[in-house]
Amino acid sequence: MGNYVDLNCDLGESYGPFKIGRDDEVMKYITSANIACGYHAGDHNVIQKSLQKAVENDVGVGAHPGFMDLHGFGRREIKLDADELYNLIVYQIGAVQAFARINNSKLNHVKPHGALYNMASRDQEMAETIAQAVHDVDPELILYGLADSELIHMGKKVGLQVAEEVFADRTYQPDGSLTSRSHANAMVTDPDEAVGRVIRMVKEGRVEAVDGSDIRIQADTICIHGDSEKSLEFVKKLNTELTNNGIILKRVGM
Amino acid sequence: MGNYVDLNCDLGESYGPFKIGRDDEVMKYITSANIACGYHAGDHNVIQKSLQKAVENDVGVGAHPGFMDLHGFGRREIKLDADELYNLIVYQIGAVQAFARINNSKLNHVKPHGALYNMASRDQEMAETIAQAVHDVDPELILYGLADSELIHMGKKVGLQVAEEVFADRTYQPDGSLTSRSHANAMVTDPDEAVGRVIRMVKEGRVEAVDGSDIRIQADTICIHGDSEKSLEFVKKLNTELTNNGIILKRVGM
Amino acid sequence: MGNYVDLNCDLGESYGPFKIGRDDEVMKYITSANIACGYHAGDHNVIQKSLQKAVENDVGVGAHPGFMDLHGFGRREIKLDADELYNLIVYQIGAVQAFARINNSKLNHVKPHGALYNMASRDQEMAETIAQAVHDVDPELILYGLADSELIHMGKKVGLQVAEEVFADRTYQPDGSLTSRSHANAMVTDPDEAVGRVIRMVKEGRVEAVDGSDIRIQADTICIHGDSEKSLEFVKKLNTELTNNGIILKRVGM
Amino acid sequence: MGNYVDLNCDLGESYGPFKIGRDDEVMKYITSANIACGYHAGDHNVIQKSLQKAVENDVGVGAHPGFMDLHGFGRREIKLDADELYNLIVYQIGAVQAFARINNSKLNHVKPHGALYNMASRDQEMAETIAQAVHDVDPELILYGLADSELIHMGKKVGLQVAEEVFADRTYQPDGSLTSRSHANAMVTDPDEAVGRVIRMVKEGRVEAVDGSDIRIQADTICIHGDSEKSLEFVKKLNTELTNNGIILKRVGM
Repeated sequence: MGNYVDLNCDLGESYGPFKIGRDDEVMKYITSANIACGYHAGDHNVIQKSLQKAVENDVGVGAHPGFMDLHGFGRREIKLDADELYNLIVYQIGAVQAFARINNSKLNHVKPHGALYNMASRDQEMAETIAQAVHDVDPELILYGLADSELIHMGKKVGLQVAEEVFADRTYQPDGSLTSRSHANAMVTDPDEAVGRVIRMVKEGRVEAVDGSDIRIQADTICIHGDSEKSLEFVKKLNTELTNNGIILKRVGM
Repeated sequence: MGNYVDLNCDLGESYGPFKIGRDDEVMKYITSANIACGYHAGDHNVIQKSLQKAVENDVGVGAHPGFMDLHGFGRREIKLDADELYNLIVYQIGAVQAFARINNSKLNHVKPHGALYNMASRDQEMAETIAQAVHDVDPELILYGLADSELIHMGKKVGLQVAEEVFADRTYQPDGSLTSRSHANAMVTDPDEAVGRVIRMVKEGRVEAVDGSDIRIQADTICIHGDSEKSLEFVKKLNTELTNNGIILKRVGM
Repeated sequence: MGNYVDLNCDLGESYGPFKIGRDDEVMKYITSANIACGYHAGDHNVIQKSLQKAVENDVGVGAHPGFMDLHGFGRREIKLDADELYNLIVYQIGAVQAFARINNSKLNHVKPHGALYNMASRDQEMAETIAQAVHDVDPELILYGLADSELIHMGKKVGLQVAEEVFADRTYQPDGSLTSRSHANAMVTDPDEAVGRVIRMVKEGRVEAVDGSDIRIQADTICIHGDSEKSLEFVKKLNTELTNNGIILKRVGM
Repeated sequence: MGNYVDLNCDLGESYGPFKIGRDDEVMKYITSANIACGYHAGDHNVIQKSLQKAVENDVGVGAHPGFMDLHGFGRREIKLDADELYNLIVYQIGAVQAFARINNSKLNHVKPHGALYNMASRDQEMAETIAQAVHDVDPELILYGLADSELIHMGKKVGLQVAEEVFADRTYQPDGSLTSRSHANAMVTDPDEAVGRVIRMVKEGRVEAVDGSDIRIQADTICIHGDSEKSLEFVKKLNTELTNNGIILKRVGM
């Protein structure tokens, strides 16, 4: 509950000749960028451009590690043993970190991507492994995860600062989990309603769940998208209305 | 010309289920390990194991970046523009650097791999781009390159410490370049002759070229191989005979 | 010199989540589709969709093999020995052929992609290797190549039917080769001029070279693009004006 | 129950510079080779060499499709929707089929690899999708699967000839399924016992399960390994003893 919040967006997801996202435009409205690390998306050229753009726009930079699955865009669940998961995280953070350094910047956070994010939200062992890897690479990195998830709990346990993430366009279950996309009422499609919910989550730390009950939620950062005209419009709207409601937009940890 | 030299070997070239090299054994006889970074060979698990083994054996660790060409093992020449080449180097060093950090170690050097090494030996622009990338990631990194090559010259130009590399099993042209492998007399096959040549390169800074002329050569580090029984035997022999001849084996910059 | 010609376009270049091209739209205006085979672009899902669309639109289907270089989109020159080049072609044709079969269709042609096309235009040995591979997989396949190039010559030599390809948007040297894109006058930018040149190439078998001389050229098929709004408009225009000029559009070999 | 059986082995699993398996040696003792198709292992060069060797040794050739996961060797479970699974199978069979054709041979069978094999043994929908893909590419292909598994049932359902596979080195549960490798008694480690069990499975169609009960099992083909000195010795022994017991070794469908 506060008067400030972070807006984060997944960026740098292009690969070689394959372009994804409207990174240059969305960069103007966000406070944190999650940069793909070359495993599920992104490559060394895209990381470098993303870092440069983020620095220009004074946007906080984070590594956005995913499964080694370019073809599936990191959205397929893959079981890895703890050692491999740990190493996969270290590698990807290290790669992006070097680009931060050559741009006289510094990685601010790490947010797991796609299936890795989802699995680690529920699976305590995976969450702890990821958190430990982040901590070992740099204990000052902030771990982004779904609000009240295992990733957040394990991040705190290993001694990391965490950022609890909420979604403007998703509905919540009474237990604070996201409604599965397979359900009809998973999405909040009305932009005004979505903005209103976000403002309440930030200011009051509360959101209405699908059953009408009112639940607590910590909203340190809001996940937004930047890959369509519509999503860009929503980001602009959200940015404007949060500001108009006295909420300061700034990256976590600043 | 001196009484010490470095023995370096390419390591960490396995990938997933595919095993290459006798890393554990060769690690005992070398002073520096060039660790593949996941582009032409190696993966996050292999890098981690290589770092752990290097630390255990007090072997200096370096990144061994190559072209993004696992199938060709980085041995195919690929033309990249300068920006892409720069980014490719930064990415790979960064990834390995993170593993050095979590093992309480530190990258000591960078040695380009395969076709990248060969192209950068001759091509001044490529050499300068690589050297600049290494310098930007960490100006204390030592750049390994073929003795008297463009890589060495450009390394010095951008302000890096360099290590001039010689080959025990290769012959030299009067101009100091390696005899192409396509020539019949490219290789020094007799182990005793190879050892004798190395000792002279280290102690006197001289080697006999294929035309019988005697040329100057700087031997800061010797490239050895560890992928066969025979190569392992040669490394042991070289290690022993260098020591017996009063040459101290230690990593560059130590 | 005739009253019919083929319009071919590279298609099926998307990969997993990465979308390239306006395949559905361009399919309406062409007579042959060159389908990426999964090495430089495309994947098993994209090939299947491309085949289905081609069959629906009565468009001839061809395999469009390229180098194993997704990140470089097959545009980087890579030297392969003849055996590997041969195998690389066989593999990619075979994969697309299976999709033709399950769609009750049949591969009509093969056109090498990108750097492979360019290298094989000039390099007789590469051209012969590719032509032999195509012939061995199916001697009824038609080999597409740059008009009057080594690919065409070697295709004929091994006994394949060939299709000589011309470019609407490129200028020609007096020797019939394409002006390199690095030259200022490489492109024909005016759509009317481009169409006029194509009509003359088809009807008269002649085109004006950059030095003003008039050269012979065989135009069996015209290479068009379908990845931008502008290129789509040009295809429609070209399709209409060729038809209006009494030129029948039909796939080669039909 | 019969007096003949097929011996099959996974082959062609090398990739670029990475060598796996003793293909040349094992080829002498088997009747069918399952050739990796380039997704989880293998590449166009390896497929070509494997086909040539199989033809030389009069060994039946099959495609051995796996998940698109070179790093995990196809051993990681990945959920794919039915369309993607279908296309993945078609692509891989097609690629290997082309190599069979240029070697004047013909694909005899298809055996899914690794996690794909295991998942399809239990999952009826996956099994049917795979069977349908095989059938659509060529209805004369024989589908190899775990004896009495969904793969076998669905193969029959779509109209394919099937080959029920048994394992010499694994124990069976009373319901005919394999004992999971995580159990202590999963493996049959004594070579004589393993051979004895195989002979009984072939001749009597029976095997003793872990609880001492005697179960029916159809043994059309025996899966053997060829990647170690020990496994090679076992193959030789098995080959010899089956023959000495009057069992004819021949590929399925011959």
